Amino acid sequence: MDFAHSAKTREYLQRLQAFLAEHVAPREAEYRRQNAANAGADWTQWREPGQMAEWKAQARAAGLWNLFLPDVEHGAGLSTLEYAPLAEAMGRNEFTAEIFNCSAPDTGNMEVLHHFGSEAQKARWLTPLLAGDIRSVFCMTEPEVASSDATNMRATIREDGDELVLDGRKWWSTGIGHPHCEIAIFMGLSDPGAESHARHGMVLVPMDTPGVRIERMLAVHGEYDAPHGHGEVVFDNVRVPKANYILGPGKGFAIAQGRLGPGRIHHCMRAIGAAEHALELMIRRGLERVAFGKPILQLGGNLERVADARIAIDQARLLTLYAAWKIDAVGAKQAMTEISAIKVVAPNMLQAVVDQAIQIHGGAGVSDDVPLVGLFALARALRLADGPDEVHRAMVARMELAKYK
Amino acid sequence: MDFAHSAKTREYLQRLQAFLAEHVAPREAEYRRQNAANAGADWTQWREPGQMAEWKAQARAAGLWNLFLPDVEHGAGLSTLEYAPLAEAMGRNEFTAEIFNCSAPDTGNMEVLHHFGSEAQKARWLTPLLAGDIRSVFCMTEPEVASSDATNMRATIREDGDELVLDGRKWWSTGIGHPHCEIAIFMGLSDPGAESHARHGMVLVPMDTPGVRIERMLAVHGEYDAPHGHGEVVFDNVRVPKANYILGPGKGFAIAQGRLGPGRIHHCMRAIGAAEHALELMIRRGLERVAFGKPILQLGGNLERVADARIAIDQARLLTLYAAWKIDAVGAKQAMTEISAIKVVAPNMLQAVVDQAIQIHGGAGVSDDVPLVGLFALARALRLADGPDEVHRAMVARMELAKYK
Amino acid sequence: MDFAHSAKTREYLQRLQAFLAEHVAPREAEYRRQNAANAGADWTQWREPGQMAEWKAQARAAGLWNLFLPDVEHGAGLSTLEYAPLAEAMGRNEFTAEIFNCSAPDTGNMEVLHHFGSEAQKARWLTPLLAGDIRSVFCMTEPEVASSDATNMRATIREDGDELVLDGRKWWSTGIGHPHCEIAIFMGLSDPGAESHARHGMVLVPMDTPGVRIERMLAVHGEYDAPHGHGEVVFDNVRVPKANYILGPGKGFAIAQGRLGPGRIHHCMRAIGAAEHALELMIRRGLERVAFGKPILQLGGNLERVADARIAIDQARLLTLYAAWKIDAVGAKQAMTEISAIKVVAPNMLQAVVDQAIQIHGGAGVSDDVPLVGLFALARALRLADGPDEVHRAMVARMELAKYK
Amino acid sequence: MDFAHSAKTREYLQRLQAFLAEHVAPREAEYRRQNAANAGADWTQWREPGQMAEWKAQARAAGLWNLFLPDVEHGAGLSTLEYAPLAEAMGRNEFTAEIFNCSAPDTGNMEVLHHFGSEAQKARWLTPLLAGDIRSVFCMTEPEVASSDATNMRATIREDGDELVLDGRKWWSTGIGHPHCEIAIFMGLSDPGAESHARHGMVLVPMDTPGVRIERMLAVHGEYDAPHGHGEVVFDNVRVPKANYILGPGKGFAIAQGRLGPGRIHHCMRAIGAAEHALELMIRRGLERVAFGKPILQLGGNLERVADARIAIDQARLLTLYAAWKIDAVGAKQAMTEISAIKVVAPNMLQAVVDQAIQIHGGAGVSDDVPLVGLFALARALRLADGPDEVHRAMVARMELAKYK
Repeated sequence: MDFAHSAKTREYLQRLQAFLAEHVAPREAEYRRQNAANAGADWTQWREPGQMAEWKAQARAAGLWNLFLPDVEHGAGLSTLEYAPLAEAMGRNEFTAEIFNCSAPDTGNMEVLHHFGSEAQKARWLTPLLAGDIRSVFCMTEPEVASSDATNMRATIREDGDELVLDGRKWWSTGIGHPHCEIAIFMGLSDPGAESHARHGMVLVPMDTPGVRIERMLAVHGEYDAPHGHGEVVFDNVRVPKANYILGPGKGFAIAQGRLGPGRIHHCMRAIGAAEHALELMIRRGLERVAFGKPILQLGGNLERVADARIAIDQARLLTLYAAWKIDAVGAKQAMTEISAIKVVAPNMLQAVVDQAIQIHGGAGVSDDVPLVGLFALARALRLADGPDEVHRAMVARMELAKYK
Repeated sequence: MDFAHSAKTREYLQRLQAFLAEHVAPREAEYRRQNAANAGADWTQWREPGQMAEWKAQARAAGLWNLFLPDVEHGAGLSTLEYAPLAEAMGRNEFTAEIFNCSAPDTGNMEVLHHFGSEAQKARWLTPLLAGDIRSVFCMTEPEVASSDATNMRATIREDGDELVLDGRKWWSTGIGHPHCEIAIFMGLSDPGAESHARHGMVLVPMDTPGVRIERMLAVHGEYDAPHGHGEVVFDNVRVPKANYILGPGKGFAIAQGRLGPGRIHHCMRAIGAAEHALELMIRRGLERVAFGKPILQLGGNLERVADARIAIDQARLLTLYAAWKIDAVGAKQAMTEISAIKVVAPNMLQAVVDQAIQIHGGAGVSDDVPLVGLFALARALRLADGPDEVHRAMVARMELAKYK
Repeated sequence: MDFAHSAKTREYLQRLQAFLAEHVAPREAEYRRQNAANAGADWTQWREPGQMAEWKAQARAAGLWNLFLPDVEHGAGLSTLEYAPLAEAMGRNEFTAEIFNCSAPDTGNMEVLHHFGSEAQKARWLTPLLAGDIRSVFCMTEPEVASSDATNMRATIREDGDELVLDGRKWWSTGIGHPHCEIAIFMGLSDPGAESHARHGMVLVPMDTPGVRIERMLAVHGEYDAPHGHGEVVFDNVRVPKANYILGPGKGFAIAQGRLGPGRIHHCMRAIGAAEHALELMIRRGLERVAFGKPILQLGGNLERVADARIAIDQARLLTLYAAWKIDAVGAKQAMTEISAIKVVAPNMLQAVVDQAIQIHGGAGVSDDVPLVGLFALARALRLADGPDEVHRAMVARMELAKYK
Repeated sequence: MDFAHSAKTREYLQRLQAFLAEHVAPREAEYRRQNAANAGADWTQWREPGQMAEWKAQARAAGLWNLFLPDVEHGAGLSTLEYAPLAEAMGRNEFTAEIFNCSAPDTGNMEVLHHFGSEAQKARWLTPLLAGDIRSVFCMTEPEVASSDATNMRATIREDGDELVLDGRKWWSTGIGHPHCEIAIFMGLSDPGAESHARHGMVLVPMDTPGVRIERMLAVHGEYDAPHGHGEVVFDNVRVPKANYILGPGKGFAIAQGRLGPGRIHHCMRAIGAAEHALELMIRRGLERVAFGKPILQLGGNLERVADARIAIDQARLLTLYAAWKIDAVGAKQAMTEISAIKVVAPNMLQAVVDQAIQIHGGAGVSDDVPLVGLFALARALRLADGPDEVHRAMVARMELAKYK
């Protein structure tokens, strides 16, 4: 047992932090200001602030690119565990991961294509995604049913000659509002009569296909998360070639499962980075503002809250790193307890830490003057995305009880 | 001891609920839709949806008007305790209290004028406020200092001949964005050398006075709360006649204290009404949506969460009613423990209930499709407004320890 | 609505507190010391300390006797609500209620006999119980099944000529170890084939009946609660006359239900009195002990814990009083939500307050030097007795959902 | 980074678990039964059940002896991190560590002698302690002051010719009741005028020295923890040779600090083993008992509680292992945040898990029929021993704030 990061991780981490300090931090306020013009619900007006393209070019040139992908040719050859601390560093702000072409849902979509895509699919979509030239979306959740139970899914994939005909309504399609979003992975019922985990398929759908209609963007606690956003989209008699099937009918669940393990590590490590950011803001503010003759951090139980935050963050990080190690060592299937556990722990921890940081900030905390409400919305959404807390607790309990059979 | 409401309260409550059912509920969606046009940060474009004026006229005609004011001539002659259940009923939605001319900060401002205003001040400002023709704002909190310690206040009131000269920057000036907002109560240092509770004064400032400059509206978790909003406003060499002093220099603290007791009852009872609304939404959604073959309310610990919410709401209500009774019976000064206690309990309870209701709603919960994020923002802001939780816990502890001296 | 106690309650409360101050407090340490000789598991050696008989005689002479019984002839004619504050005052210490002949399970057993006993049963058992000459036990819970589901009960009542034959094993039979315990109420299956709420009967069993065999006393977190204790007892072919049936076969559930409403009010109010005691100990110790140059109550978040305790106690009290009022006003059946709610709230609140008080005491807190571990054991047992928290939460949720049908 | 245990640890763990399964588990009930004869407060009657000496001989013969000691000659040569999982395995029951000569306070005392003892001290006391022939006690905490602030200590060490004269009252002297306890380490003021961390000394005191008077044993939530116990002891003009000083005057604090790091790892890992035991009991009981037609584990939120317990245990374990690694890698001084963090986390986690396990057991849970109340008492005491939670939270906060200076 050894808690020291590998030399490779340490070196990447150092370069990444240096990059963030040198290139990103000085322009962060400028980026936020420019992106604030995107704040409204009218996603058709959203633009990627100009800094992003520059940062991406710099990151690519610096070799800080596609770090999430374990593949040595296209990625950095880092294991899930080795990448985790880099994801944490990228999670400090909500826009940072994109700089390194490491942001969801593109990362998961690239992994799907990398592992399960045909050569033609890879050439057409994976290559520009890896280059950061386009962005993508994953269309799974539906507004009309409880998506915590994936068997509720209603969207359909029907074969018609050489074509697939797709119908359904999806929402929380994250990234669909981005001006560069060109490709969707659509999940739907392909074999309604099959057993529950062999009923669904996944299909690649270019965003400009007729019948794909984005109806609106959804806010999360009032935040639209421009310029990528979360969309509600209708697929109305959408026709694509059969060659757009990923693996073929009935393979949707298996693909989705493979996609989730490392993806959850990334999400949780970014949440941990966000929590470190919130704690830092809380401490700086609490040391600076004075009430009743003392820095407010010295009042009442505030220092205990700092301690609780530090302890909660460190515990969440260790559990996530442990889950990453287990995925690498024995595969995501054998790490289901840990993956579900961090899915509960990290977002709840982030929500609690941010809530506390807000409280220390007073009125400024709930305003847009400090980036806390955005981190709060992130935490709140993560408690629902990819399965709500309750589903993951049920999974952990099921695994635990299985030991007694 | 008797937990039954007075006949007068029961009768008003019945009429109020009938009014809400008959006049408001059928047009609630329409009102929200129309107000959504106000959603952005540009407060100069905010308009009061047309329904409001109609509702107000109907409410006034129905004798459901100024119910908050104990005064028998101008108000309904209800005690704090008798009014409390009506405040709860009005709190179900964020816009309902205004229909009955019972919304903050106008209620508190009207009380200040009623108790402490000169005849001229009453004629000029209280009369149109009681008529619901204009709205008002209370400018106390400042962005540059920790406002939890009121002695930090920096704004100044200087006498210059027959005039008062006001300078300072205020924020979280709730209501200042409303198109009908015509009058501000400004609080500032009038006697910097006096002992800490005799340093401040309150002055009436018409919003169109030169030097009053609204700089922006603040969002709360992304919600601007149009059409009233929360503003940041600069008073830059603002000059008003000395006659605009309320009571005179050094009286600010005493006036503020008197304003807070019943006001906190109103806030907390509205929070309880909001929590009942959230619980109702949670149950309806949880019974309707199905996952894993059952209504999701039947899964895992969800029913226990319903029980916890019911218990927490009932406890918060009883404590608030008790505080109201104590204010009526022995005055706000003798009820400081209870007033601070409910200020901690009610918003935290609301936040917890709404958070749970959001969770049961899945993705819809964090969106604008259901009114939960608005109630969440309300709860979150209430944990800071009029003193953060920590200040009120400290007050309860101080009162408790005083018993041992 | 009026939160002032009735004149009768105020007067009784004043007399009760004067009695406790004058007669009990000065001899409390002496009583505890003498009772400590009872501390072991060998209940056959338990003796009631001599102070108790003297106190009881004094209390009876002072008219502070059977206050729990609403009956005007045998009791004090107090409603549930009027008695509640007296129960709180008696709950400060674990032995105080007995002084006034108001301790469980005698109170519940007397109520059963008062409401449902035959004249002969009353003459034989109720009269000496009301006189405080004997004590009693209620034998319901069984070790071999989950008693949270009352339909699990296995003990049997069989008719054989003029006799009833009782068989079964019971535990947590509180009071059975008391030297004065002379009568048990035994609950068992009388009509196994009937619908689930008409299967059980209750039978009076003198403790000296052949076949009644006390096997041992149970400790609660190491506390045997001498001199009354909690026993495990076997009924092995126990024969009593049919006249010992209370109401007759199949009536057990209905009797048990009637017994529980006011009984839970008493339990919860005593828990609240215990919590007040714990908070007082916590504050006194926290003001007296010094660390790092300050009274430890001034360190870290300790004052916030005082505030949280005060708020939690006051909320629990108000909810319990409300439940009492509702029982009086509309009957226990219409107050099921409130009765279950306080059954969850009061013991959990007590456990939390005592745990905190222990923490402030340091090592002394977990020792027998201060009466906190006894109060903790009381709280812990109350979270299980008469239905665990989980069953009561389920009941509150069921009532809540019923509003939506 | 690697979460796999070293080969050495894996091998020891396997042998340890095999030993426990083969030799200990079959006789556990017998040991407990025999030790129950020790249950009372009269420690002079306490005897070590005969199984212990046999188990110790077997463990020593099996090479499972003094595993805690990193020293390769006298111990097993395991690092803190390598030993940690063995401590967890030993923590399942409260008596298991002693079998392997790995129980507190002997482990800490042996470390003190190993690192700081003179050759003569080692020969006289360390040798028989390493052989498991005698036991020891550490006398630090005092009843009259808040021991959370070590500078409060009042006991004195005075030089008088060739002798040291010791005076003071100590309590929570764990192990002092054991029939084999022969040696105490006494801590007291040796240089009252020195700066606060150079005022104290540590002295070896044979238990049979005149003037050492054990006054009583203290119960923890009613548990006396025979046969070792927790004593209150008076040192009244106790005279020992100067050669009994460990290192000499003023060195007490430095020695105490060195003693605490690994000791807290041991305590916390044992607490984690205890929590695993409690969770196992909870699940077995919850699967076995049926209510309302289902195993009670399937009711309400009980499965979520299983999940929460699993997650909390795993997080506590990882944090403790991380702290162990940090102690090994950079020393206890650089691991103060982590050492204080686990001191908060592990006992609170254990208390919460045991409390939940008790609840699932119903009445049996609070009785002595299952070993849960003993584990609860352990957790409760650990939240106070070696510094209460509050002191450790303050330490974590201090370290955190130091990053911002």
